[in-house]
Amino acid sequence: MSDGNRWRQLAERYRGVEFVDACLRGAAQVMLQNNPLTGLLILVGIAVGSLHSGHPQVIVGALVALVVGTVTAILLRADAGSLRSGLFGFSPLLTGAGVTTFLEDRPLMWLFVVLGAAVTTVVTLALSTVFRTWGVPALTFPFVLTTWFLLLGAYQFARSTLATPAPPALPAAGGTDVARLGGGVVFHVLEGVSQVFLVESWIAGLVILVGLLVNSRWSAAFAVIGAVAGTLLAIGFGAGAATVNQGLWGFNAVLTAIALGAVLSRPSGPTAAYALLGVVATVIVQAALTTVLAPLGVPTLTAPFVIATWLFLLPKRNLTPVPQHERHADGLLTALRPGAGPG
Amino acid sequence: MSDGNRWRQLAERYRGVEFVDACLRGAAQVMLQNNPLTGLLILVGIAVGSLHSGHPQVIVGALVALVVGTVTAILLRADAGSLRSGLFGFSPLLTGAGVTTFLEDRPLMWLFVVLGAAVTTVVTLALSTVFRTWGVPALTFPFVLTTWFLLLGAYQFARSTLATPAPPALPAAGGTDVARLGGGVVFHVLEGVSQVFLVESWIAGLVILVGLLVNSRWSAAFAVIGAVAGTLLAIGFGAGAATVNQGLWGFNAVLTAIALGAVLSRPSGPTAAYALLGVVATVIVQAALTTVLAPLGVPTLTAPFVIATWLFLLPKRNLTPVPQHERHADGLLTALRPGAGPG
Amino acid sequence: MSDGNRWRQLAERYRGVEFVDACLRGAAQVMLQNNPLTGLLILVGIAVGSLHSGHPQVIVGALVALVVGTVTAILLRADAGSLRSGLFGFSPLLTGAGVTTFLEDRPLMWLFVVLGAAVTTVVTLALSTVFRTWGVPALTFPFVLTTWFLLLGAYQFARSTLATPAPPALPAAGGTDVARLGGGVVFHVLEGVSQVFLVESWIAGLVILVGLLVNSRWSAAFAVIGAVAGTLLAIGFGAGAATVNQGLWGFNAVLTAIALGAVLSRPSGPTAAYALLGVVATVIVQAALTTVLAPLGVPTLTAPFVIATWLFLLPKRNLTPVPQHERHADGLLTALRPGAGPG
Repeated sequence: MSDGNRWRQLAERYRGVEFVDACLRGAAQVMLQNNPLTGLLILVGIAVGSLHSGHPQVIVGALVALVVGTVTAILLRADAGSLRSGLFGFSPLLTGAGVTTFLEDRPLMWLFVVLGAAVTTVVTLALSTVFRTWGVPALTFPFVLTTWFLLLGAYQFARSTLATPAPPALPAAGGTDVARLGGGVVFHVLEGVSQVFLVESWIAGLVILVGLLVNSRWSAAFAVIGAVAGTLLAIGFGAGAATVNQGLWGFNAVLTAIALGAVLSRPSGPTAAYALLGVVATVIVQAALTTVLAPLGVPTLTAPFVIATWLFLLPKRNLTPVPQHERHADGLLTALRPGAGPG
Repeated sequence: MSDGNRWRQLAERYRGVEFVDACLRGAAQVMLQNNPLTGLLILVGIAVGSLHSGHPQVIVGALVALVVGTVTAILLRADAGSLRSGLFGFSPLLTGAGVTTFLEDRPLMWLFVVLGAAVTTVVTLALSTVFRTWGVPALTFPFVLTTWFLLLGAYQFARSTLATPAPPALPAAGGTDVARLGGGVVFHVLEGVSQVFLVESWIAGLVILVGLLVNSRWSAAFAVIGAVAGTLLAIGFGAGAATVNQGLWGFNAVLTAIALGAVLSRPSGPTAAYALLGVVATVIVQAALTTVLAPLGVPTLTAPFVIATWLFLLPKRNLTPVPQHERHADGLLTALRPGAGPG
Repeated sequence: MSDGNRWRQLAERYRGVEFVDACLRGAAQVMLQNNPLTGLLILVGIAVGSLHSGHPQVIVGALVALVVGTVTAILLRADAGSLRSGLFGFSPLLTGAGVTTFLEDRPLMWLFVVLGAAVTTVVTLALSTVFRTWGVPALTFPFVLTTWFLLLGAYQFARSTLATPAPPALPAAGGTDVARLGGGVVFHVLEGVSQVFLVESWIAGLVILVGLLVNSRWSAAFAVIGAVAGTLLAIGFGAGAATVNQGLWGFNAVLTAIALGAVLSRPSGPTAAYALLGVVATVIVQAALTTVLAPLGVPTLTAPFVIATWLFLLPKRNLTPVPQHERHADGLLTALRPGAGPG
């Protein structure tokens, strides 16, 4: 930990180090962590996955967007504390990864990475203003919204070409290539972790899990729980083998599990049960959004995580212990609550 | 009324009766009523309609979801007063009826009923937090949102099959089987009332109207006004005969008319005129949403009621009498207001 | 200016003139101006464009809806100051122009103009309540929402027929008739101004620019900047020649540029840069919405302007000069801000 202290001193003394620190924390904040070493390992994970799958532009796009988004926040004089915690870096980073993953590598794509990263920061400031009303964070929705706009907009321009997995088509009922439980599931679970950053690589998933572990064991544990639960639910419901094999049912569940189970509430038994119901909701929302977006040929990105987590965070104060006096005259509540005494 | 008093005493003394009372009021709250007898008659109506149309799973699904949703609210320590008024029962009940109506009767359907009911309660808590900001209720939107997610999600899973009326298709301009005014309209109006609970049965509609009558004559009157106005407007605009014959243009209008005309404002002449404009808006929003959802092959549910009622409730304070002194220097307003004197 | 004073005295003395004044200001408020002469010139522009393109019903629909919407606001006892500034006129006016542009001239179309104008005022009151929470205006979104409902609803009714440019179809990637920079661009830019009011006529655009000029040189300047930037960006990105030639990439950009550059912030260097990024976002949002709406066969209307301007207004306070003491301990911010001194 003395290394950590030395880094913190450097960051306080030199502006260049302060900026690098903010960017590294930005990479970590995708997973809701505030730790530069976690961010470094995540960037290594993205680099490994992006080179391994033959898409080097993804790590380049992610890094460019991380820097552009953070600089935009500085130019717009955003809150200094949030800036230093990396809260203006994580959504632009994902926009950079998303645009380079789903658009073909042409000059306009790189312009979209830069403009998109700057706009993502504006959207982060805008949505934070809106959601502050109810005490919930904007999560990765600035990335989702901006990247949807860029991908959907790309259809209208001859100088940009989509490389999304499926062309626009009307939704059809679930096919016959149903995924089955097998030994490969461990790899799909790790790919589920790496798909948070739009790369499909079990090694990247492993590196990212180590990154979580150096900051928070609970976060690492819930990441694994989320990836396993999301993948098993999808297999149990009869999802297609192709999507399960790419880890696509894991990444939203990973984020929901970390957010609801480890970061935004204190870990506990009831919290874990609530987080698991949230993971179920995430899988269903992801399936629903896949249907909704089929006619437009764009992916759900992390919108299922965002929607499910918002819905499960908004009533969150009901899960905290309630002072005894509030429940006096309240037979119904004590009766059905698990483990309640006889009155 | 002494029966009512005796019931209330039983509910205060015995937790089992208290729970049944909360569930019955939950059934009544779909129609914005807080009365266990109304709820009982509504459940009888759903049972009659569901058996009559050969879909017994609808009443079973509605009852299971009503219980699961209410128990979930208890476990989450939701507000006791709202719980006792049935405010955590009505949306889950509709989710249960919706899932069993629009998914085929397979094991996964029943899992979706239970999970959907629990999630509907979480969504009710979440949306109530959001809409409290503007002093309007979430209405049946928790049901709409959760059921849309479940139906749209079902496309992606081989173990669930949709039984929605129309498969995904691009919208087409209104056809030639235009409905015409005839003697059968009375039945379509009553079916409009029963369609609130996703059953098509004029007898059920009659039983439900009696249920309204035992609690509030104004609510029963506005339910009839809404069903008649919605059906006549649809015929007047040239809607298809098939949809009119199933009572599908009535149920959203029924709910808007009750909400705007009888429950959420004091009944009066201006209020009735405003509620009628709200019914017109409901019919147009329903037609629009039918077009929007055509490519996805899922029904509008009660979203048209919710959207129109929100839009007409948000500015509601402008309809209450305004203190005289506010209007002093205000020639324009007094000039054009109906019945305004010359000064 | 003595003419202006005389008119103001007449409006204060006679209710008829007060009403005409409120309607004229309503026409001007589409462009975010509060000036009856600007409104008069805009109405002249719409009339010229509507007659010139052989669609006289557009100016009639716009005028009818302007009057109906303003009268509805009076009947609902809306805020007198807002009424006098024309804030309840501009969205209905656009609804009238939109419905008569995109529905065929049949009796139901005129009923939709009247009902739509009244509902637009209700929606204006509703959305103003919602957006007041964050201190941003509803802009033209009441028009967009109501007109989308009417056009989408028209599909379901045999007595209404859509005349939108394209029938429902799945989106396809950008074609080969890419627009090129040429002498005609000046006309497309002026048509971009007139398309704010759904008419395609460079003469109308010129008259409307004069209308802006009599009230605010900054607004006129930013209108030109927005129309030029929107059109050039669309050509640069490779948009289709057909849409560029109709001025369709200008009108949303015009409104965003006026709102962000001239009206809702004080004009300055940083403000202009921010407004330009807002124009870029507007063009991309417009392309995205064009894709989203393709399966439904309805136009984007001014939704791209509304969405981009909301996103850029919500964090606006960050652009105002920040008191020095807030930034004390804040090396990162001063370091990267342009023109920042050495400490």
